[in-house]
Amino acid sequence: MTAWALLLEYDGTPFVGWQRQDTGLSVQAVLEDAASRLTGGAAVASTVAGRTDAGVHAEGQVALLALPDHLRAGQVRDALNFHMRPHPVVVLRAAPAAPGWNPRFDAVVRRYRYRILNRRPRPALLLGRAWHVERRLDEHAMAEAARLLLGRHDFTSFRASACQAKSPVRTLDQLDVTRGGDLVEVWAGARSFLHHQVRNLAGTLKLVGEGRLRPGDVARILAARDRGQAGPTAPPEGLCLLGVAYPADPFTASG
Amino acid sequence: MTAWALLLEYDGTPFVGWQRQDTGLSVQAVLEDAASRLTGGAAVASTVAGRTDAGVHAEGQVALLALPDHLRAGQVRDALNFHMRPHPVVVLRAAPAAPGWNPRFDAVVRRYRYRILNRRPRPALLLGRAWHVERRLDEHAMAEAARLLLGRHDFTSFRASACQAKSPVRTLDQLDVTRGGDLVEVWAGARSFLHHQVRNLAGTLKLVGEGRLRPGDVARILAARDRGQAGPTAPPEGLCLLGVAYPADPFTASG
Repeated sequence: MTAWALLLEYDGTPFVGWQRQDTGLSVQAVLEDAASRLTGGAAVASTVAGRTDAGVHAEGQVALLALPDHLRAGQVRDALNFHMRPHPVVVLRAAPAAPGWNPRFDAVVRRYRYRILNRRPRPALLLGRAWHVERRLDEHAMAEAARLLLGRHDFTSFRASACQAKSPVRTLDQLDVTRGGDLVEVWAGARSFLHHQVRNLAGTLKLVGEGRLRPGDVARILAARDRGQAGPTAPPEGLCLLGVAYPADPFTASG
Repeated sequence: MTAWALLLEYDGTPFVGWQRQDTGLSVQAVLEDAASRLTGGAAVASTVAGRTDAGVHAEGQVALLALPDHLRAGQVRDALNFHMRPHPVVVLRAAPAAPGWNPRFDAVVRRYRYRILNRRPRPALLLGRAWHVERRLDEHAMAEAARLLLGRHDFTSFRASACQAKSPVRTLDQLDVTRGGDLVEVWAGARSFLHHQVRNLAGTLKLVGEGRLRPGDVARILAARDRGQAGPTAPPEGLCLLGVAYPADPFTASG
């Protein structure tokens, strides 16, 4: 068998999330079921860089799975894409993985974008792709608050109660807030994130943007190490996993 | 009654197009049926800047309709948006129209974007929002060909056979081709367009991008005034009406 690194794009709207669940269709099931068509029906197990929640999108998810030898990269990509039809999941690139390479544990940067449509009318073209916030957001106040969260901290205040990570300490390398017209976007980058961390950060920055918190309040909330102090979890549809970086690009020889 | 100018956004995917038809749901029907909820049930007739085809999107369509007096702009916008739920159509702005103003005949610029996803894997996040073209396009050759089409010409070669315009002569003020990653975009601007003109231009520029036509061939095709010489009509899902301009902005006092 050959281990393949896969770069994936998906629209998270119709899925229960990355991970297989009894409650509905997952991205993992779509991928693994397609892969099993290339093994003569034998089950295929995949590992992934980030297990996105229901409704969360990906432009650059990274996964690993093993397929029978003698397939070329272009064949792996095209065959998986064929068998994943009509689900909105595609393999953008496939490349043979280095021995022992793991898409989750070897990742050194994960980048997310959280998108807010900040206007009175509900979304039409961005339906399912952005959080609709009606009250005018002050993106400068949000950016000021975001800067206070950069660096290595105990992020307990922004961690889901269901989070299974051993430590609540993470190093936030990027947290920028930009506006283009009615679109306010939060750009987050870190080696790894806690469960719901980006959505909890976005939910709190939104309160700052609305003027319900001052930027400095966010430093106090961080220091409190208390989930009850921070804002609510922003809804999943605004979130997109943009990409994952590794010490060596796994897709240099990709199809 | 008060005449209202409306700025509209819609996802064209589920519609038979702007215009009412027996074959399915139109954007016009969704808008007019919502408006009739504000007239006590009396039918409302709208006029529009550009009658988009089935599957074509709009970020800035402009329409006109009359409603009972004494509504404020914000009420018109919010009430229409409420009654158009759950269809992917929204009023972005509403403003009282100047006497005699007509969204179609008073328009001086219409701007469209034609989007091509230029990669081997099918679209996931841009499904229904872009034309999927697998062969690598040379956007520089496309831009060179596009420049040859600028100005006032007889566009018979790029006109649908069903086009009802009296004259095939139009003045193309903008036709740019840009690339960002896998996304190739054609930007078109003119006072008015013939039926299918942007999609026929996009379909021909795509052949130039693939190397099946040289840029100079496009000047020959234009001069031939023969629809059979040009490329096929590009599919509707790549097209979006970005905006319509008027000598005086109808939305300066909008809600």
